[in-house]
Amino acid sequence: MTRERHGRGGRRAPARAVDYVRLRNPFRPQAVFSDDEVAGLHAAALDVLERLGMRILLPEARALLRGAGALVDEAGETVRIGREIVEAALAAAPRRVRLRAANPARERDYAEGETLFSAGAGCPNASDAARGRRPGRLADYEEALVLQQSFDAIHKHGPSVEPQDVPAHLRHYAMMRGQMVLGDKPMFVYARGRRQVAECFEMIRLGLDLSEDDWGRGVWASTVINTNSPRQLDVPMAEGVIDFARAGQLSVITPFCLMGAMAPVTVAGALVLQHAEALACIALAQTARPGAPVSYGGFGSNVDMRSGAPAFGTAEQVRMQLGTGQLARLIGLPFRSAAGSAANLADAQGATENLMGLWGALLSGATLCIHAAGWLEGGLAFGYEKFVTDMEAVETLAELCQPLAADPAIEAIAEVAPGGHFFAAAHTMARYATAFRAPLVADLSNHGAWAEAGGLGAAERATAEWRRRLAETPRPAQSAAAAERLAPYIEARSRAGGAPPSD
Amino acid sequence: MTRERHGRGGRRAPARAVDYVRLRNPFRPQAVFSDDEVAGLHAAALDVLERLGMRILLPEARALLRGAGALVDEAGETVRIGREIVEAALAAAPRRVRLRAANPARERDYAEGETLFSAGAGCPNASDAARGRRPGRLADYEEALVLQQSFDAIHKHGPSVEPQDVPAHLRHYAMMRGQMVLGDKPMFVYARGRRQVAECFEMIRLGLDLSEDDWGRGVWASTVINTNSPRQLDVPMAEGVIDFARAGQLSVITPFCLMGAMAPVTVAGALVLQHAEALACIALAQTARPGAPVSYGGFGSNVDMRSGAPAFGTAEQVRMQLGTGQLARLIGLPFRSAAGSAANLADAQGATENLMGLWGALLSGATLCIHAAGWLEGGLAFGYEKFVTDMEAVETLAELCQPLAADPAIEAIAEVAPGGHFFAAAHTMARYATAFRAPLVADLSNHGAWAEAGGLGAAERATAEWRRRLAETPRPAQSAAAAERLAPYIEARSRAGGAPPSD
Repeated sequence: MTRERHGRGGRRAPARAVDYVRLRNPFRPQAVFSDDEVAGLHAAALDVLERLGMRILLPEARALLRGAGALVDEAGETVRIGREIVEAALAAAPRRVRLRAANPARERDYAEGETLFSAGAGCPNASDAARGRRPGRLADYEEALVLQQSFDAIHKHGPSVEPQDVPAHLRHYAMMRGQMVLGDKPMFVYARGRRQVAECFEMIRLGLDLSEDDWGRGVWASTVINTNSPRQLDVPMAEGVIDFARAGQLSVITPFCLMGAMAPVTVAGALVLQHAEALACIALAQTARPGAPVSYGGFGSNVDMRSGAPAFGTAEQVRMQLGTGQLARLIGLPFRSAAGSAANLADAQGATENLMGLWGALLSGATLCIHAAGWLEGGLAFGYEKFVTDMEAVETLAELCQPLAADPAIEAIAEVAPGGHFFAAAHTMARYATAFRAPLVADLSNHGAWAEAGGLGAAERATAEWRRRLAETPRPAQSAAAAERLAPYIEARSRAGGAPPSD
Repeated sequence: MTRERHGRGGRRAPARAVDYVRLRNPFRPQAVFSDDEVAGLHAAALDVLERLGMRILLPEARALLRGAGALVDEAGETVRIGREIVEAALAAAPRRVRLRAANPARERDYAEGETLFSAGAGCPNASDAARGRRPGRLADYEEALVLQQSFDAIHKHGPSVEPQDVPAHLRHYAMMRGQMVLGDKPMFVYARGRRQVAECFEMIRLGLDLSEDDWGRGVWASTVINTNSPRQLDVPMAEGVIDFARAGQLSVITPFCLMGAMAPVTVAGALVLQHAEALACIALAQTARPGAPVSYGGFGSNVDMRSGAPAFGTAEQVRMQLGTGQLARLIGLPFRSAAGSAANLADAQGATENLMGLWGALLSGATLCIHAAGWLEGGLAFGYEKFVTDMEAVETLAELCQPLAADPAIEAIAEVAPGGHFFAAAHTMARYATAFRAPLVADLSNHGAWAEAGGLGAAERATAEWRRRLAETPRPAQSAAAAERLAPYIEARSRAGGAPPSD
């Protein structure tokens, strides 16, 4: 895909032949445990499921698993899941899923070796330098979608900001509409109750004008299934697993295991818990519909033991990522990982924390890295400037995924005398305009020029960048038609009272 | 090594059993080229040396290489070096070198698989939030040494700031004295002329009270040999190669190949040039004294093609790092890499750029990563706050080098009921105080508490951290004795007129 890049002054640089959409991971996955140790963690997780079990609050889910042979304690709502159930589920789960999108050029395979990034998500607040920090509004949710759409290296949409100004029983209408009117990438649906999920699916069919066959055979939506660690799955999440499985849509299973809080204080212990919970959800999905698309995954880090505050970008997070990758390869499923930051600002702390998680995702072999850009305050705020400064890093990693020529260029070396320079060499002149990625907000000018231009930090420069993107990003091709097709549905459903966020 | 950590409020956390001194690289080196392609780049570099040659401005160096069989054009000062000379040099160069230090506990092996970090170096200016940006003074040079000394994860000393207030013919006295009075790690000597180098060596013998035998059989000093790319080696650098080789001290060979400026505009082309230049210097060292300790290495990145400004932390830099590692392993020598930043501030740009280079160094299998912390403005300024914010990243990577237990902790998981928490679990209580590294300047508090405390960014918090370290870092054990032994020598040499920076 050819893209045009803009200089900071709005100058248009020549198009570079880079493809930030179809990224393949260029690195070999890294290990933190030996193969034997990983097998031991897997065995321990099976043991946890078999002996201790999982508390699953939805009776239908317990019944499904009982049907598959699990031992259910209805009084304690606890399900003990034997390893043969897990093994059957892993045998049934697909290794490769095609994520469909409004724009076919945005479709991606969800599989080992593929690399997808998505923006910071699930934030109740939005924050930018121009307008300050505020509770998330629909306008912020929609702006974040435009920002996601404006970067090829963001590969699927996600709910960056919670639109709290839209009543909860109508919010899913606005959130689905936004994704189809402002973006054209694979979409996200919250598992917030059966009626909302069913209506979101219906909106995708309507908005993208899909035939029953198109819908039924394609993965058009994904959701994130968070367990209520330790060892608990609540009602809407269990419903989500079942409903997404039955509709053939993707569940991205994500225990959120903070070491020392919701998980054991050690990496290995937290991984065992995460793995057990993920396997339980995968088993539930495959019991609901064998072959249902599921992603293994996890989001683990540690808490600061002095304050109990979640920490991100730590060595523990990176080790959790790498260990998760080892377990994913052991069970043969693609998985999601996450970056993110506890910082309150798009500062050096925020950049360091997030980039540790980005590298951890890449080196673990994660297929999807969620919260790759913009996640401030441990997810409590989506930062516009943070999104831009993080995208500088994401695009740099996307560059690392581009093909690299091995031509030794001896003719260029021969062309320049010892002690000379290559600025004017023919080899340079033929390539200079498109050789390198132009930075988004990195300022490479010397101290004098930089100080004279105001001495701004990267976060300050980022304000102009997100403003420009909000102003200049075109609506996707299907935008108007989708809006038109969705309007009567949303109006009718809203008039009928909407749908509450859980049953 | 057990270390004590300080909270931001100066509280002393319990000692954690971590060793940030003897770091082993936990990652498998990553490739950007196939084995065949790497062999092709190596062959191309041999071809460059054989056909095009290297301009070497020191007659003695040309004579040495002529003696080894090279073809010398004295008029053009150009030496064409046959592959058999290179091969003999590579066979003679040691694969493992012990870096000696005033403190034996700080000694490290310089070899593949080992990981060493050193601070940003060679900066003409110093910069901090309290005192602003200024031309480097001896006081800044010495403060930077104290900061280096205060972190176990900085493994050797380097000249972070150029003490421009000391006349050039006396500067090396002050710089050597500083390293022995304020630090106890492996030392750095600039190759700024034969008399200065000889005097620096003499000062190490004197200052550390080494016998002739101790000195002669140990590597107590290292220098960085920069070529004058493309394909040129100037007089002081050629002298440095020869003098360090003859004294059995370590030359860290470092072509500085900026793609599009001093090197071809492509990664492969720049690598061929860097490799040819490095091989020429290694050949010179081994010709001067077979078995002389040398480090292969490079520092490559690209220039911004709109402005010609050097860029750091780019995909090109990371690819140069990874490619350098592949070439290093092909020739069987340990190598140095570098991080660094073009930013003017310790902001998100600076953090992102530096951390890209740190990961590149780690993933390339570099033995030494120079400029790991504090390098602003592409090396034109050493930033105190930048040093601290970068050390947050370096320490996180050092944590990744620590051993990791694989105990699945099932007893801890069994201890906590579904939906409960691990804060009070026995497994947690036994470990919480020492489980995780306490951040240097990362602030994990929530937005309200953070705003109430002043809403500071990481760089602002870093000021207190470097001030505390300057105030609290103890002098090394040998400090007073070294100062006493060096004083008469420095006084006498100074009275005799010092030594000019080049012959």
